[in-house]
Amino acid sequence: MKLDQLDTPAALVDIPRMNRNIARMQSRLNALGVKFRPHVKTTKCREVVHAQLAAGANGITVSTLKEAEAFFAAGVTDILYAVSIVPSKLPRAMALRQRGCDLKLVVDNTRAAVEVARYCAGQKEAFEVWIEVDTDGHRSGIAPEQDALLEVGRILHDSGVKLGGVMTHAGSSYELHTPDALSALAEQERAGCVRAAQRLRDAGFPCDAVSVGSTPTALSAEKLDGVSEVRAGVYVFFDLVMRNIGVCSTDDIALSVLTTVIGHQPEKDWVIVDAGWMAMSRDRGTSRQTEDLGYGLPCRLDGTPLTDWVLSGANQEHGILSPAHETQQTTNLATRFPIGTRLRILPNHACATGTQFPEYHALSADGETTVWSRFHGW
Amino acid sequence: MKLDQLDTPAALVDIPRMNRNIARMQSRLNALGVKFRPHVKTTKCREVVHAQLAAGANGITVSTLKEAEAFFAAGVTDILYAVSIVPSKLPRAMALRQRGCDLKLVVDNTRAAVEVARYCAGQKEAFEVWIEVDTDGHRSGIAPEQDALLEVGRILHDSGVKLGGVMTHAGSSYELHTPDALSALAEQERAGCVRAAQRLRDAGFPCDAVSVGSTPTALSAEKLDGVSEVRAGVYVFFDLVMRNIGVCSTDDIALSVLTTVIGHQPEKDWVIVDAGWMAMSRDRGTSRQTEDLGYGLPCRLDGTPLTDWVLSGANQEHGILSPAHETQQTTNLATRFPIGTRLRILPNHACATGTQFPEYHALSADGETTVWSRFHGW
Repeated sequence: MKLDQLDTPAALVDIPRMNRNIARMQSRLNALGVKFRPHVKTTKCREVVHAQLAAGANGITVSTLKEAEAFFAAGVTDILYAVSIVPSKLPRAMALRQRGCDLKLVVDNTRAAVEVARYCAGQKEAFEVWIEVDTDGHRSGIAPEQDALLEVGRILHDSGVKLGGVMTHAGSSYELHTPDALSALAEQERAGCVRAAQRLRDAGFPCDAVSVGSTPTALSAEKLDGVSEVRAGVYVFFDLVMRNIGVCSTDDIALSVLTTVIGHQPEKDWVIVDAGWMAMSRDRGTSRQTEDLGYGLPCRLDGTPLTDWVLSGANQEHGILSPAHETQQTTNLATRFPIGTRLRILPNHACATGTQFPEYHALSADGETTVWSRFHGW
Repeated sequence: MKLDQLDTPAALVDIPRMNRNIARMQSRLNALGVKFRPHVKTTKCREVVHAQLAAGANGITVSTLKEAEAFFAAGVTDILYAVSIVPSKLPRAMALRQRGCDLKLVVDNTRAAVEVARYCAGQKEAFEVWIEVDTDGHRSGIAPEQDALLEVGRILHDSGVKLGGVMTHAGSSYELHTPDALSALAEQERAGCVRAAQRLRDAGFPCDAVSVGSTPTALSAEKLDGVSEVRAGVYVFFDLVMRNIGVCSTDDIALSVLTTVIGHQPEKDWVIVDAGWMAMSRDRGTSRQTEDLGYGLPCRLDGTPLTDWVLSGANQEHGILSPAHETQQTTNLATRFPIGTRLRILPNHACATGTQFPEYHALSADGETTVWSRFHGW
């Protein structure tokens, strides 16, 4: 189907842009001499992940056990579940390992380590566990110099669990927007994770994997000495938040929401479209950045940005398109955007927008679309 | 299954609270002498809608054609699709009517009216169309005194389309928080919609239905003279936004997200849980209200609110629980909320949180849960 035949709203993936994004990240990390383990939470879509693996990625990162199960069923075996494990999730994780999935778990505290060790004692199969390291204070993990790092290492190692490595995610990179600040954070992320690995090794524990990453730091690191692999997710589609951070251009954004003009409020210079927050998500990530793009940046059907307009408001199934600048003169809204006009809205956050849709419509260079299913839930 | 056996995160529906909310709205509208047409966009769930209809509702309101198709398949025939129609959606809507669904469409502009009339001319079946009226300037619709109201009425009526009525939604009620302001807006909504109906009738057009509503105005209207029916959606579960508006109490909120403690950051007084924005949604509706509740209000497993805590931050699968008040003393986080502790988070916005989940776990008074499937997409 062509774009003018699809029901709206619909999530579009521009395949040439996606492939360019995949090639850019993979070649960058190849040049830095590290492996790449894409985070599939962004897309939850087989076709995308197969393209990432075909380009040279080694294994995947998941944020839920459902992702692990779905991609193991799709033939991926090397999987890192990058959220600290809790006892109630161990049986479901073990079931995957017993079926041949090389699923690696993460812990960042002694209690969870004890529980994993205790669970493994009753099983024929041991888990491989990585320790989460906190290199920027934004969320989870054990700081590289904390005593708990070695305590967790010891609990795991002494119980026969395979201590596979350390991992960190400098998610505070989302708050930056200059190359210098980004490369400095990338170095902080690298150095902290390498230091944690060194402390574990110095204490006599194995620590093969040293895994770092976020899209902004992965694209800003100048060296990755001591790192074995990088993780990143949103780079595959990019979005307006990434554009404002400065790691992609508007023309790199591969995800957009196809929408139709359904009304006008001429007194207020409003164009009403059928992409509300149910389509765009409630993510307002650009509201804290240098350029606030509301719920998204509208484009013509051919992808040309309409930079004088912004999706300024969103109800559940109604979006409000309005002038981006207060002084802007708008006349003849109904002539410029007649009822039935199709537009494409670039999203703030590709992970959040994607999950609103049961499928992507993947758009080839020739203008044809193909349905790529995606899943949600846990 | 009991709450301690469910995988987390999970969306819980407290059935006794839901039934109480349904009974409250239905008995209120019965007393006011109007019919009730619940908006099913909140839940997209058969069990919930059947409970609403069993309590006395007349027909349903939908926000997408997928909802119309799903609920028609579930036996509901009286359906109002409350988003202004565009030409590309007419064949899918007509297919429902031809299968026996009494699907009513909405328009708020002459162009759409012309297109509906033109489409019907080529069909054996005519649509029934209602005109959307703008009574508070917050989104779509034609103001009651505008010329366009009669123009649209004439286009529809003269072409043989059944002009079924007028409908309005005073969505600006979400910005209020006092009973006086709410009842004043309810009266404005009522009076504007009745006036629009009167103008159409005075011009010689039929206008049976006079449909108004939003949850806050439906619960605040003192009289509904001239109104034939009320629509409301979120009242069935309520949420923190509705609590801050003042139309429900915390104890009325029937939707919560079951979550598990997965980590701590003691230096920052953070408890990390496995309900991030993927579970809660990115909706920050309370951020503009008198009490900002972050991404949600945590409760014990039995539902008792932990009013000293708030879900202050959310990554995709990580939520950050922190003290609600800066001066608060917190000690022994790991003793108070050990790894594996289960909590329930009340959401800002039930419509947005619900859609993050493929199913609800409906919780009976005896503590047993039942899976209630829900759908998403268009």
